[in-house]
Amino acid sequence: MLSPAQDKPIILTGDRPTGPLHLGHYAGSLRNRVALQRSHRQYVLIADSQALTDNADDPDKVKRNVIEVALDYLAVGIDPSETTICLQSALPALAELSLLYLNFVTVARLERNPTVKAEIQMRGFARDIPAGFLCYPVAQAADITAFRASVVPVGEDQAPMIEQTNEIVRRINRQVGRELLPEADAMIPTTGRLPGIDGRAKMSKSLGNSIALSASPDEIREAVRRMYTDPGHVRASDPGRVEGNVVFTYLDAFDEDQAEVEDLKTRYRAGGLGDVVVKKRLEDILQALLAPIRERRYLLAQDQSHVLAELRKGTERAKQVTQATLDEIKAGLGLFSF
Amino acid sequence: MLSPAQDKPIILTGDRPTGPLHLGHYAGSLRNRVALQRSHRQYVLIADSQALTDNADDPDKVKRNVIEVALDYLAVGIDPSETTICLQSALPALAELSLLYLNFVTVARLERNPTVKAEIQMRGFARDIPAGFLCYPVAQAADITAFRASVVPVGEDQAPMIEQTNEIVRRINRQVGRELLPEADAMIPTTGRLPGIDGRAKMSKSLGNSIALSASPDEIREAVRRMYTDPGHVRASDPGRVEGNVVFTYLDAFDEDQAEVEDLKTRYRAGGLGDVVVKKRLEDILQALLAPIRERRYLLAQDQSHVLAELRKGTERAKQVTQATLDEIKAGLGLFSF
Repeated sequence: MLSPAQDKPIILTGDRPTGPLHLGHYAGSLRNRVALQRSHRQYVLIADSQALTDNADDPDKVKRNVIEVALDYLAVGIDPSETTICLQSALPALAELSLLYLNFVTVARLERNPTVKAEIQMRGFARDIPAGFLCYPVAQAADITAFRASVVPVGEDQAPMIEQTNEIVRRINRQVGRELLPEADAMIPTTGRLPGIDGRAKMSKSLGNSIALSASPDEIREAVRRMYTDPGHVRASDPGRVEGNVVFTYLDAFDEDQAEVEDLKTRYRAGGLGDVVVKKRLEDILQALLAPIRERRYLLAQDQSHVLAELRKGTERAKQVTQATLDEIKAGLGLFSF
Repeated sequence: MLSPAQDKPIILTGDRPTGPLHLGHYAGSLRNRVALQRSHRQYVLIADSQALTDNADDPDKVKRNVIEVALDYLAVGIDPSETTICLQSALPALAELSLLYLNFVTVARLERNPTVKAEIQMRGFARDIPAGFLCYPVAQAADITAFRASVVPVGEDQAPMIEQTNEIVRRINRQVGRELLPEADAMIPTTGRLPGIDGRAKMSKSLGNSIALSASPDEIREAVRRMYTDPGHVRASDPGRVEGNVVFTYLDAFDEDQAEVEDLKTRYRAGGLGDVVVKKRLEDILQALLAPIRERRYLLAQDQSHVLAELRKGTERAKQVTQATLDEIKAGLGLFSF
């Protein structure tokens, strides 16, 4: 669903700046962004306002990580001349659209949102949900529509957010009387979520089971050494399990020679292939993958003013785009403007 | 609670632009604004965003009435060189603050707000409350604090809104570590709410029981003629009731000779004073009160560009004030800014 003046589909994606990004982010989204940035008009939003919805007690953490996340983006090869990297809190049109959309969504509808329900449970909010947290699907709809994104890469569990967005889109379009906003499609990644090195479903710095994009060679080596495999695979000669074996999950995600990975799996299952061998293979791959990222990140971190300047430039561009959408929606709905 | 650089207390007040203002607004708030505008730094907000929280289906009504309300303000003597008249939807800092404050208030707290509870019932929303309506006390807190108002004229039923604001103020100040925002005091009007001409508690254009500020001499005459008095007071010689008698309520509100009004009440109660006489007195007072307002309003309506220019000027001033507060709050909380 393209607007007439441009030939590339618009993608909106982004991250909450609550910590530096890690290998899980790379596998699940960052490398896709690098791959898509020429074929798509891509906006990457550092969602610092959204991060506050459950970090209102620690805004400083959010602030510090804005620059960390921007560094990660540039380090992995997101190219600011192709992709607009921008800061959510510096785009007032997003707040204005959020507040406007809140009038088009009922409280009951927000409470039914499965993602919100699940996250409320996970974060232990119970009855004390911050109102901002309940409303964040609406803020997300504001983000998506402000950029007129028609493609939104999200995890499978986030699909209800896109549905909420599209309900708002249809409601606005109906009231305006034309297709002012495009509906968005969720782009679900083909590789599932990368588990932590301990085998837990979620890789997270706070769980101590992640590999940072800036990990040193020693940290990478140590992480692979500690990696969860098959506890029943004691001797190399024992048959081993591949399912739930983090080393093989990572090889699936990062090894470019997938035929070789299939062959290794067969040998591992049959017995006769030791953990040491597959771990060595994975370590080499991760060292090769992360070395240039770490080096670029280190160099960029020496000159943060350059990173800030890129972020400011992208945010200025995003400001124009989002303000134009807000103006068009206000005009379309017949709201007052000077 | 004044900031050091200024000697006048700051007042924030305003109206939702859902219809032209009427005599009830004049008695309850407009004349106070005229009286207070020199002794106070006064901001009057045309709350068009808030009006959308329960008029999302009819934004055009809100749009049309922005200019009507601005006309009413200038017609009654609110002086734009003394008072800043401004438009809510044109002040992005208010939306940004609203969204920020939503993180500091729980859903349970919003649902407990007695004003919201009562209005939800009155408007028949039941479970289908628009989220914007549930959140509007937070938006109101954003308005009040963005102007650093310490005095907020409100009806008695709105006092819980000020309490909600002050909870947010204390929360922000605690986190920032200093008295960045002043707490607000409700200024409850000494005269109660003016009833409709039919005696119902609420004067409202849609109930057909109001007197517009632009009412013609004939309309005023007719409204007073139809005015509810004491149905038991059939002949002039009968004793009459003064309580609930709209003519006397209006004389209480508008007659400058209150000693004379007390005298009339005594005679009315005793019997021997006819409705015609007191109605004539009230009509003369209302004609004298409304004639200059009507004339100024008529002249101003001939040149709406002047009214718009005043509104735009006030809004520009308000933009600077509210943006400065937002910037200070963001800096105080340690949020990112370029």
